[in-house]
Amino acid sequence: MKSKLLLSLLAATLASSAMAQVKPEDAIKFRQSGYGFMAWNMGRIKMNVEGGNFNKEEVIKAANAIQAIANSGMGALYLPGTDKGKGWEETRAKSNIWTDKEKMGKVATDFVREANEMAKVAAGGDAAAVGNQLGKLSGTCKGCHDDFKAKR
Amino acid sequence: MKSKLLLSLLAATLASSAMAQVKPEDAIKFRQSGYGFMAWNMGRIKMNVEGGNFNKEEVIKAANAIQAIANSGMGALYLPGTDKGKGWEETRAKSNIWTDKEKMGKVATDFVREANEMAKVAAGGDAAAVGNQLGKLSGTCKGCHDDFKAKR
Repeated sequence: MKSKLLLSLLAATLASSAMAQVKPEDAIKFRQSGYGFMAWNMGRIKMNVEGGNFNKEEVIKAANAIQAIANSGMGALYLPGTDKGKGWEETRAKSNIWTDKEKMGKVATDFVREANEMAKVAAGGDAAAVGNQLGKLSGTCKGCHDDFKAKR
Repeated sequence: MKSKLLLSLLAATLASSAMAQVKPEDAIKFRQSGYGFMAWNMGRIKMNVEGGNFNKEEVIKAANAIQAIANSGMGALYLPGTDKGKGWEETRAKSNIWTDKEKMGKVATDFVREANEMAKVAAGGDAAAVGNQLGKLSGTCKGCHDDFKAKR
């Protein structure tokens, strides 16, 4: 019994060893960086759609960056206790991120799905379709922010 | 002659319209975000290689994020005049970024090449090969920082 417990503790330690080495303030900074970089790319897709000068290659690059960040496993950066603390700035993560797991899982899944779809639509190069998908993707950002990100 | 000049001015304006809408402080914040997010992913590839618990899927996610950011066209965020200014923090970009174009082009090309290779090697799942490629990729980061990023 004792050795079983030790083994299970060891397994848990190994599984989380990579994240255990990230300091809380760095975890907050890294996730703010991910969202910050996605914000640039969302903005430039929007400018391409609305600016009357659609650049397919730029939109593809932007969509690929969003997709790769969305699929990078950022959830691991929500270390216990990082609902408070300063990365680049004070975190605005609300504490229900760590408690309302069902809803959190749903908004995260929605976001990744629409980010993957955005990359596909961008590759197609149709400006109207990109605009339509950008609306869906933005909706998943907002859906999460409304519930899990504190207002300024 | 006059109309040719007007046309060429118009073309230049259109081509840069997307970036013209990004404020200098946001451009600095966005590039700091890109590097910040890559730093996380470089760190976790390193931890996977050195931690004795290589997780192929995590390494692939990390390498894909680095690759997509490297290929996103971040150079556009180096707007004229943004060698000074505050994004998340004061920029450490040195002014020779805007003047030593030949060397800057070389370090950028090196970095993108090794980031693309990192994604390929990660997909292969060989820990030793990943470690070797991480060294090459890190070298291109350092090569740029040495010349173009101010020390703290």
